[in-house]
Amino acid sequence: VMIILGVDPGTRFAGYGVIAVEGRTERLVEYGVLDLDVHESHALRLKRIYDRISEVIDRCLPDECALEMPVYGRNPQSMLKLGRAQAAAMLAVLNRGIPATEYTPKEVKKSVTGKGNASKEQVAYMVGAILEAPDLSTTRLDAADALAVALCHAHRDRGGADGGTHKDWSSFLKANPNRWRG
Amino acid sequence: VMIILGVDPGTRFAGYGVIAVEGRTERLVEYGVLDLDVHESHALRLKRIYDRISEVIDRCLPDECALEMPVYGRNPQSMLKLGRAQAAAMLAVLNRGIPATEYTPKEVKKSVTGKGNASKEQVAYMVGAILEAPDLSTTRLDAADALAVALCHAHRDRGGADGGTHKDWSSFLKANPNRWRG
Repeated sequence: VMIILGVDPGTRFAGYGVIAVEGRTERLVEYGVLDLDVHESHALRLKRIYDRISEVIDRCLPDECALEMPVYGRNPQSMLKLGRAQAAAMLAVLNRGIPATEYTPKEVKKSVTGKGNASKEQVAYMVGAILEAPDLSTTRLDAADALAVALCHAHRDRGGADGGTHKDWSSFLKANPNRWRG
Repeated sequence: VMIILGVDPGTRFAGYGVIAVEGRTERLVEYGVLDLDVHESHALRLKRIYDRISEVIDRCLPDECALEMPVYGRNPQSMLKLGRAQAAAMLAVLNRGIPATEYTPKEVKKSVTGKGNASKEQVAYMVGAILEAPDLSTTRLDAADALAVALCHAHRDRGGADGGTHKDWSSFLKANPNRWRG
């Protein structure tokens, strides 16, 4: 069994999710969302991200980590803050000696839904279907995003897009016409 | 005696400098520049900044830390990378439980030279003069910048601009007509 930690570090919310992979089967271990209060100092927010990710690592002992790291954006100030949040998550992983891989949002969406431009809701729905945790699409989407990047990492060496069961989002929809928006 | 660590975290180079403050006297303890090889992965660069700053803290046991943190820039991609470097330095300090204060480049320049738009060379020269380390202006300027932010922090509660000896860059030049470009 391989344990994979996925992290989606943002400036308002940071999502994380842990999955266990055995062969082509992925199970949900745990997930959570860190609400980074807007009134806290930047420094404290970074420390909160670092500490929470470190706690999750110590509890779940992941073998590998995957981080969703957007690298494009238009607003320089937003990108500075996003870079800080990304580094806090990255350093928590690096300081525990766990191999870390970065993925862009497009790579994650493509891997999980087959579409690089899928909506957050579509990603959440697919993650819930793959991990048999349908509630995911009704909670904060940051946790689903974190689980999606963990799944993306689990799928990286496979030919298929979502773990072999369905090649992509459209074939999943065809096979499950009543599950989307159900 | 209060020990202050100053850090100027950048994406190509990260400078650090340690000063000892006793009353109105500032002494140079040590300084250095971390060359962040462009061929290394971003993750490794962050880890190098984090580890080096942690080492300096363990060796010099600073009471407080001051970081020069530019927050404005035009290029979103550069700002993302800068934010990551800033967070690596910040987390090294926070994880050792040391109080950290952020300063903008303008604040640092104003404090050390009396001019918010001073050149890097002018900052280096003033830092060398204050700390009686004239070689500083001929080495990489990142180290002088780091010492400048440490001095800025030491001066923050004083009325004067450069520790009380000279009110600003222009009065220093008048008092020392032969030292600049000497």
